Amino acid sequence: MSRIAYVNGQYVPLSEAGVHIEDRGYQFADGIYEVCLFIDGRYWDLEGHLSRMERSLKELQIEMPMPKSALKTVMGELVSRNRLRNALIYIQTTRGVASRNHPFPDGVVAPALVMTARRFDLDQSDAKAAKGIAVVTQPDIRWGRVDIKTIGLLPNTLAKQAAKEAKADEAWLIRDGHVTEGASSNAWIVDARGVLITHPKTNEILGGITRQTVMACAQELQIKIEERPFTSEEALKAPEAFLSSATGLIMPIVQIDGKTVGNGEPGPVSLRLREAYKARARAI
Amino acid sequence: MSRIAYVNGQYVPLSEAGVHIEDRGYQFADGIYEVCLFIDGRYWDLEGHLSRMERSLKELQIEMPMPKSALKTVMGELVSRNRLRNALIYIQTTRGVASRNHPFPDGVVAPALVMTARRFDLDQSDAKAAKGIAVVTQPDIRWGRVDIKTIGLLPNTLAKQAAKEAKADEAWLIRDGHVTEGASSNAWIVDARGVLITHPKTNEILGGITRQTVMACAQELQIKIEERPFTSEEALKAPEAFLSSATGLIMPIVQIDGKTVGNGEPGPVSLRLREAYKARARAI
Repeated sequence: MSRIAYVNGQYVPLSEAGVHIEDRGYQFADGIYEVCLFIDGRYWDLEGHLSRMERSLKELQIEMPMPKSALKTVMGELVSRNRLRNALIYIQTTRGVASRNHPFPDGVVAPALVMTARRFDLDQSDAKAAKGIAVVTQPDIRWGRVDIKTIGLLPNTLAKQAAKEAKADEAWLIRDGHVTEGASSNAWIVDARGVLITHPKTNEILGGITRQTVMACAQELQIKIEERPFTSEEALKAPEAFLSSATGLIMPIVQIDGKTVGNGEPGPVSLRLREAYKARARAI
Repeated sequence: MSRIAYVNGQYVPLSEAGVHIEDRGYQFADGIYEVCLFIDGRYWDLEGHLSRMERSLKELQIEMPMPKSALKTVMGELVSRNRLRNALIYIQTTRGVASRNHPFPDGVVAPALVMTARRFDLDQSDAKAAKGIAVVTQPDIRWGRVDIKTIGLLPNTLAKQAAKEAKADEAWLIRDGHVTEGASSNAWIVDARGVLITHPKTNEILGGITRQTVMACAQELQIKIEERPFTSEEALKAPEAFLSSATGLIMPIVQIDGKTVGNGEPGPVSLRLREAYKARARAI
């Protein structure tokens, strides 16, 4: 069966899914995106993702392409048409199509909306978490507003490619000596006291929806959190490190730049949080 | 007559010109572009633009979509099919289409190539230059590799929009207190001695092809150049300021943040360089 995509009002075979060459997403990276899981009949953290979508668009002065309720209808239709039980849903909105010119187009231009869904294998993700992953550090050369979830991801792809070439799964980005976040995830360590440490929510990181839920889980588990920058050296001295993201959930990190974190195994706090996150996502 | 675009091997009506939603240019800003003028039967600074295109792609490890000679053939065909005498040619190349994943796709993926041509009015540009333009300063929040001419232009569009809202034509970007360049041009001042001052070619600015030709023109006219950062305060004390870009050529600046530059008229050095640039472009 051919996969089906949603593109500006129509459900079309993915192979035929196209946008105009003057869509501002293509010429200016003038748009935003969200990624959300659908597992066993439930969307995980859906309200968080749609609220962040609203916020990203507002920051760029782009209108919501449709109300949240309608977005949910399209998501449901897409999951159903693709006959998916567990899915990764990708939503992208741009400022729309206009003759190429840097400033926002004059007049009313409809934002573009593209959505795809593909199979997500939670068992595979769990298997990966049971082993833990490796990260490498890379300079954080991104722009000053990475708190907006824009499609301007070229620096992220370059960092991810560097990670891939080093046989690692993620790149931790270093700015002014500290770890801001991963190329597509938030970065965490667990110190010797069992306290979670992660970069505060500023313009230097994306306010992860999973990050937010990890915090709620930690609170429930009475685990303390310190929001402050940390270095990769500090991470290597910490008993545990992990990342959080919509598709990685809570993923233990066992190696940084080829050096072992903790005892080289996924840490107990990380794994406990992963289970708590899954339980919470399934329950809401 | 409908405008014709070139998209991945085909000449198509602009209204039907599309790319796949998983073109990495659309999802990751993973691509580059060039803009070049065609005036009275000649391409202006063509070799410079095609060499920079090659360099941008090399920096991102993307293959040239076709040899330079073939690119020139497509450009000629596009100008001819659109029946243009004076044209602005836009060339965009991305890493191509692949299932969404941050690192470069595995295996051989053909780079995408899109080209458009539209009418360029040199008289209108000359009329604008005779009056001079206004710029406003904006913080330079772009990424660390703006020397690569990527399509990741969201910060540039935001700065241009701020300029437009202030009824200015361009935004001068300020980093660490100095002017790096404009949102889509290089920035210059002429000091009291008649010396040109412009930011040195580093990762903080795009190495403009017009910038390079301005330098050649200045040398011919025995005008000295100092490549060093300057501030907007220094620009306001300078007798002249101007920008250089493929479409603006040399464009005198008569106002910065609402304050008058020099005597409020386009300066003689700027206008002399503009004429020299045009003569040189026409002759090569």
